[in-house]
Amino acid sequence: MSNKLKIGLIGLGTVGQGVVKVLDKYDDIEIICCAVNNLKKKRDVAIKNLTQDAMEIASNPEVDVVVEVAGGVKMLDVLMEAIKNKKHIVTANKELLARHGAALFDLARKNQVSILYEAAVAGGIPIIMPIKTTLSANEFTNVAGILNGTTNYILTKMEEENLSYLDCLEKAQKLGYAETDPTGDVEGYDAMYKIAILSNIVFGKRIDINRIYREGITKIDAIDIQIADELGYKIKLIASAKKINHENRDDVLDIRVHPTLVPKNKPIADIKNATNAVMLTGFPVDKVMFVGPGAGEFPTASSVVGDILTIKSEIHSSKNILPMTICHHDKYAYQVDIEKTINCYYLRIDADNEPGVIGKIGSACGEFGINLSYIIQRNKNSQDRATVIVITEECYEQDMNKMITKLEKDNKIKVVNKIRVM
Amino acid sequence: MSNKLKIGLIGLGTVGQGVVKVLDKYDDIEIICCAVNNLKKKRDVAIKNLTQDAMEIASNPEVDVVVEVAGGVKMLDVLMEAIKNKKHIVTANKELLARHGAALFDLARKNQVSILYEAAVAGGIPIIMPIKTTLSANEFTNVAGILNGTTNYILTKMEEENLSYLDCLEKAQKLGYAETDPTGDVEGYDAMYKIAILSNIVFGKRIDINRIYREGITKIDAIDIQIADELGYKIKLIASAKKINHENRDDVLDIRVHPTLVPKNKPIADIKNATNAVMLTGFPVDKVMFVGPGAGEFPTASSVVGDILTIKSEIHSSKNILPMTICHHDKYAYQVDIEKTINCYYLRIDADNEPGVIGKIGSACGEFGINLSYIIQRNKNSQDRATVIVITEECYEQDMNKMITKLEKDNKIKVVNKIRVM
Repeated sequence: MSNKLKIGLIGLGTVGQGVVKVLDKYDDIEIICCAVNNLKKKRDVAIKNLTQDAMEIASNPEVDVVVEVAGGVKMLDVLMEAIKNKKHIVTANKELLARHGAALFDLARKNQVSILYEAAVAGGIPIIMPIKTTLSANEFTNVAGILNGTTNYILTKMEEENLSYLDCLEKAQKLGYAETDPTGDVEGYDAMYKIAILSNIVFGKRIDINRIYREGITKIDAIDIQIADELGYKIKLIASAKKINHENRDDVLDIRVHPTLVPKNKPIADIKNATNAVMLTGFPVDKVMFVGPGAGEFPTASSVVGDILTIKSEIHSSKNILPMTICHHDKYAYQVDIEKTINCYYLRIDADNEPGVIGKIGSACGEFGINLSYIIQRNKNSQDRATVIVITEECYEQDMNKMITKLEKDNKIKVVNKIRVM
Repeated sequence: MSNKLKIGLIGLGTVGQGVVKVLDKYDDIEIICCAVNNLKKKRDVAIKNLTQDAMEIASNPEVDVVVEVAGGVKMLDVLMEAIKNKKHIVTANKELLARHGAALFDLARKNQVSILYEAAVAGGIPIIMPIKTTLSANEFTNVAGILNGTTNYILTKMEEENLSYLDCLEKAQKLGYAETDPTGDVEGYDAMYKIAILSNIVFGKRIDINRIYREGITKIDAIDIQIADELGYKIKLIASAKKINHENRDDVLDIRVHPTLVPKNKPIADIKNATNAVMLTGFPVDKVMFVGPGAGEFPTASSVVGDILTIKSEIHSSKNILPMTICHHDKYAYQVDIEKTINCYYLRIDADNEPGVIGKIGSACGEFGINLSYIIQRNKNSQDRATVIVITEECYEQDMNKMITKLEKDNKIKVVNKIRVM
């Protein structure tokens, strides 16, 4: 019997082609079939046995490992079938895992197969395996990161070239960093799937993605980035999850994705362009940070092939299923609503340029117990309009929202942007 | 039969006590004996079965895993005996692995036991396991890092507080960051052991530590740090290894530890105090960086206990020995001499303050084909003496050394410091 590891590949786009190229040097690993949408599309790589029916791969008795790099959720049934047929899974599909991880991991445990997914979070950065092995002695309190390269690229360009969001989106699309429909990236869905997956393994609980607070970068204006810079901050799309005390429980998770003012002295403020970063805080390790390429043909292939080699070396030959990679937790986390969280805020307020604006803002904040740490009126471009910038001390999100509602009852005052501060 | 994993611990200093505290919460792992130098020393933790004879632990038939956190090379025989007795090894001992890794790994392979050593390099940062698993598809060309927290702390304080090396060393000693005899840290031995271990797994070759170029930080003066800062650099003790082309071979390794001028725009320039960082460059991943605590009771215990849990979960129960953690390479690397390497240099030159000094330096450099990218005379503090700062373009180390010898034949000129530039 040949000791070759036989791969069934699903998806032959950018990442799939990267995987084919990287696997080329391994004589003991063979891609024996591949499912694609379009059989006739021109590709960089030649693959035998192309099919449009991914289910063929799930049921092919020759296949040892199904490698899924198609994206989206439509391959759920195919992967479930593959697991039932005792095939190990390697996937880069963050959405599928974030939405249907519970079903997939339950079935995998039942069928004693492994699902490895290093490429699903932060592309080429090793993060899943370190959390499950080397860092497994830790009780984590916090995980936070820049998990979406597209939005970080756009924010970096907005900052460096003082361009609008739309101009930078267009640049990103031209360079292939953003898709024609950029919603998944710029509205924070991609980062949400990734922080859900990270939270799952960092805190050992299942995560309901519908309860993750999510806000994208489309409302960020160049002026916000410029003002933040003057005040000592960068604006980053931060995905984070932390354990908080809430309603007499100490195991509540605060999971969210939103633009954030990050103090420039924090290392994550320096992460530029399409680079990703993940920071973990826990005991006994304290703080560790991982930085690297979050996407791209080859970095993603590095993680996918790393998983394939792990299966080849550790699982396939010994029939061991790497207990540390198996999902053992069945309970859902208790997730807090954003309304009940405590944050500092940056507010950009547009008002008629007449006396008393700052007084009105101060009064409204005072009424809801919100202390200001900074307030300044900027009237650079207009005689009629005033821009007031506020940075608050910590307060409840719900109090902030009530304060804004109250303030905007004065129709000369408009809170143009509210951004949370790290 | 109990499924408890039974540990024999060697060393109960700071790291050993951290390991005991962190293991306390695991009911299925028990430290059944511990070897120490001094039976009567007061310690934070209570351990049964203390002994002064570490060999007892190696031969104790009850022990499944020997955890060695004693340091130094004196435990070599004990670990060899433990391996012969089929015990897995977890060690934080960089010197032992760098000096005697070949013997230890050969014997481990023969006896089908694992040696895990995540804590030996960069303390709490997961780096060994990611290289061996998730990143295993990569061909690396470069690994570089700040691998010694003591020297990075001293250099940070010298920079931030404009203090002398000796003042900062004293501070570090008071805080417990440096030992009474600081030689191992400040002369670069500790970083040398660590880059040897990293090179071994990154390039898949055995490393002769006697052929690693090593230079410590004791000659760095506050004025060098200040001038470097003005020119856009930080001075860091960088340990690095890269694959170079040399004498018609493309697999030659250039491994070294020395102070380095690092451009401020490189992420590694921002690594402060006792923090460590490791950067890897390879294909297909491109560049990844890992940042975290390089030492300390709990961060080191995080890695040691992570290794113990890996053995408990992956090896002990299934009798699999994690093939990816086994050392498979037997060949020594071809290591280049520093004399044959190409570098840019920073020179601080002291000279009589008389006309023609810059001309003499320029002539000497010209004679050996060394191009200058920067030269300036600074005479701030003296009428009689001139300080000349030079930054060169790339040249061979041997040509630089010849140039310096030639220049210093003029007894009015002295090259006070030569620091390589990244």
